[in-house]
Amino acid sequence: MQVTAQQLCDLLQGTLEGDPEVSVSAPSKIEEGRPGTISFLGNPKYESYAYTTASSILLVSRDFQPAEPIKSTLIRVDDVYASVAILLDQFGQSQEQEAGVHADAFVDESAEVHTTATVARFAIIEKGAKIGAGTIIYPQVYIGENVTIGENCILFPGVKVYRDCVLGDHCILHSNVVLGSDGFGFAPQADGTFKKVPQLGNVLVENNVEIGANTVIDRATMGSTIIRAGAKLDNLIQIAHNVEIGHNTVMAAQSGVAGSTKVGKNCLIGGQAGLVGHIQLADGTKVQAQSGINKPIKKPGTAVYGSPALAYNDYLRSYAVFRRLPALQQELTELRKKLAELEKKS
Amino acid sequence: MQVTAQQLCDLLQGTLEGDPEVSVSAPSKIEEGRPGTISFLGNPKYESYAYTTASSILLVSRDFQPAEPIKSTLIRVDDVYASVAILLDQFGQSQEQEAGVHADAFVDESAEVHTTATVARFAIIEKGAKIGAGTIIYPQVYIGENVTIGENCILFPGVKVYRDCVLGDHCILHSNVVLGSDGFGFAPQADGTFKKVPQLGNVLVENNVEIGANTVIDRATMGSTIIRAGAKLDNLIQIAHNVEIGHNTVMAAQSGVAGSTKVGKNCLIGGQAGLVGHIQLADGTKVQAQSGINKPIKKPGTAVYGSPALAYNDYLRSYAVFRRLPALQQELTELRKKLAELEKKS
Amino acid sequence: MQVTAQQLCDLLQGTLEGDPEVSVSAPSKIEEGRPGTISFLGNPKYESYAYTTASSILLVSRDFQPAEPIKSTLIRVDDVYASVAILLDQFGQSQEQEAGVHADAFVDESAEVHTTATVARFAIIEKGAKIGAGTIIYPQVYIGENVTIGENCILFPGVKVYRDCVLGDHCILHSNVVLGSDGFGFAPQADGTFKKVPQLGNVLVENNVEIGANTVIDRATMGSTIIRAGAKLDNLIQIAHNVEIGHNTVMAAQSGVAGSTKVGKNCLIGGQAGLVGHIQLADGTKVQAQSGINKPIKKPGTAVYGSPALAYNDYLRSYAVFRRLPALQQELTELRKKLAELEKKS
Repeated sequence: MQVTAQQLCDLLQGTLEGDPEVSVSAPSKIEEGRPGTISFLGNPKYESYAYTTASSILLVSRDFQPAEPIKSTLIRVDDVYASVAILLDQFGQSQEQEAGVHADAFVDESAEVHTTATVARFAIIEKGAKIGAGTIIYPQVYIGENVTIGENCILFPGVKVYRDCVLGDHCILHSNVVLGSDGFGFAPQADGTFKKVPQLGNVLVENNVEIGANTVIDRATMGSTIIRAGAKLDNLIQIAHNVEIGHNTVMAAQSGVAGSTKVGKNCLIGGQAGLVGHIQLADGTKVQAQSGINKPIKKPGTAVYGSPALAYNDYLRSYAVFRRLPALQQELTELRKKLAELEKKS
Repeated sequence: MQVTAQQLCDLLQGTLEGDPEVSVSAPSKIEEGRPGTISFLGNPKYESYAYTTASSILLVSRDFQPAEPIKSTLIRVDDVYASVAILLDQFGQSQEQEAGVHADAFVDESAEVHTTATVARFAIIEKGAKIGAGTIIYPQVYIGENVTIGENCILFPGVKVYRDCVLGDHCILHSNVVLGSDGFGFAPQADGTFKKVPQLGNVLVENNVEIGANTVIDRATMGSTIIRAGAKLDNLIQIAHNVEIGHNTVMAAQSGVAGSTKVGKNCLIGGQAGLVGHIQLADGTKVQAQSGINKPIKKPGTAVYGSPALAYNDYLRSYAVFRRLPALQQELTELRKKLAELEKKS
Repeated sequence: MQVTAQQLCDLLQGTLEGDPEVSVSAPSKIEEGRPGTISFLGNPKYESYAYTTASSILLVSRDFQPAEPIKSTLIRVDDVYASVAILLDQFGQSQEQEAGVHADAFVDESAEVHTTATVARFAIIEKGAKIGAGTIIYPQVYIGENVTIGENCILFPGVKVYRDCVLGDHCILHSNVVLGSDGFGFAPQADGTFKKVPQLGNVLVENNVEIGANTVIDRATMGSTIIRAGAKLDNLIQIAHNVEIGHNTVMAAQSGVAGSTKVGKNCLIGGQAGLVGHIQLADGTKVQAQSGINKPIKKPGTAVYGSPALAYNDYLRSYAVFRRLPALQQELTELRKKLAELEKKS
């Protein structure tokens, strides 16, 4: 997408200095600016780059007074950061796949694909599945039997959704996400082998959820594994069967939640953190990266750290002493010696 | 699949109270029961739900005496839990893919696909590969050259099996599992770069193994990376080259095993645990979640915890003191003061 | 690939004892040798296997004096290990996919695929993408709009590359790698929900990089997430937006790097280690497995361990005391008692 300086200036209600016809196709950082891109100067400590950047257009504050000549076309705006947000949205609205069902896709005749939805090449929509208005199914995606996908979702290449799962509206699933694989349930037998426990539930993802690449969400044994509206899951996350992730909870990459655990609303789960099964985390719980949670957290807003996790500040205090344990041991040894000497004297 | 109450009652050799013609298509939990589903009352503490559930059919013990009227059709059985297991199996026996090679699949002419096997759309079976009787290859699966897959396996959408790998019978591979990717082997060169060490072995998976979504098992440098019969691997697990996982060993999600390590039979490896390379774990070893194992474990049945791992109880005892380290440091400081005073006096 | 003993002997400039016509198709370990394979005797402690192995050919040192008869054909060489490296290369040069664009692949008419490149079945090359000479795109790979792939790369089945990403020459991407998924960026809103921050940058992978199966590298918000030449990434790794991984840095499986962190050259990042965002690691940093790095590392060659990480030896020393914390606490209690007695006396 090519846009001229004048078009952007109008969009941002700014004022223009320089060539109104110069056009750009992408944003870039001011220190990495290239011709054909637009950069911005928000933080004054980057000002020196304004005089050297090769960006075609530079977005600056209305009251910015350059100390040296600037080659880029300037657009002056009231609020640089707000304008950047508008710009990013503008450039992000790219549509790569043409709407409609591609000739090389397979859509079962019993499936319902909305006329404004897209099903790209080598994608598969099985029996009884439903794809809502405006939803884009990229190539090589698999939608199992009786799956329901809401409106304006994006499923990137390679996403696999097992049968009976349900997605709300405005969800984004990145490449190779797996929804609805069997929960990890096995009944131990007398001879040491395991018998598979059939996993008959599904996965229910509510509206406005984004799920990162290669993340896996297992189907429930019975009932649903649930991701509540507004939750954001990063890449390579494990969500086990019958888990529930609360509204607007954010999980960082490579974290994992074991079976039947319920995570509250507005929680923050750090990267590589792990939660055992069958516990509840109160709303607003903050789990530090790499922590291991092995018991329920009942008080909303609690911050925890460590494996097994302690209260955040308690862990830091204990760890501070852990760092000087060799010194502490030495002190103890010296005390013992001195005490032994005193005992001799007394 | 729709089944009537009478059909289920006959299957379970129970007695029926209510409408024998009401039909259900899935099980549900008693507290989440919906019309068209069957629930069960096993644990007496859920009894109150029996009077409110919307499930069409309710499975109860023969001697259950309702305290209030129940809307659902009742099926009374001798052993509720045993009947549930039968039911789950019954509902789990769904077959989504029609047998045979689909028109949109690619099967090399030198490959051997059993007449009762299924190869679904956009799946690929390369030269010399063999697919056993009753095995189901879902869409978008890749089976490399000379791969052998046994009987009655299920490979879910997106599974990738590199050339020369071998799978036994009754194995289940969930979506986007990768078998046989190159082991991570590089020879450091004088200039700081690395030269790839060719990985020429394969992966051998024995019978009755289940492997979770997005798990990766690398091929051996030479010989085989081996998953023994009955082992169960959860999602997002890393198995490096030349590893061996013993019979009936269970590994939880996001755990990882480095190169050439041998894990014994009937071990339990917790979630996010990591094992260094070139060690052996005795049969029945229990590794707590998030632990890091950096040396061999020789005694069968050992339980370990921590990173690096200690004996399970030792870790808990040390961690209990870790929690009160700030207090312990304080005590030490006080002792030192008191001792100094005593020394002055003496 | 079948090769005779004579052909291998010529290749390795060795001398032959036994049948020059016996042929082999793969290497094997001496203790697992099978007919039709070649094994080697490098380490003298494996000598006993030389007399029992079923390998058709055995590679030995020129000065090796067998104590017993050997059934295998012998090839004597000056340097056994150097010869093995040559052999492994020889057997590793297998080409499974025929060059050219397969009939069942989709290549947009605006894409440029070099005549010596391969695009296999059900692979997709979108608008404006470029595939260099000798590069092999395996089945079911997705190459997004305007992606550039250099020469002699291998992209294994199921790799997904989002639009605008750039790969250098001689790169290997294993199955289900995802390049260019959206960085995890959300702006918190007053009502507790999150607004997606568009991710408009790309991923730039330089020459000679290998990336393991199911690893994910997110695109930059603006600019590029960069993997420098010669870096080697294992399986299931998370690389967040705007990260840079330095030349010849090696990352083990399941490690993760949060947003905007810069890892230096020739670093070693252990398995399951995690790095917070917005820090820099000096060249040659060594991060022990499962460690958590939460602050910059400025001194080149630093080794660190623990979560949060300490200097490697400091962590080991502290952990050694951690192991005996219960004893240490007991000693402290005893000291306190003795001191109390002394105080009474004084």
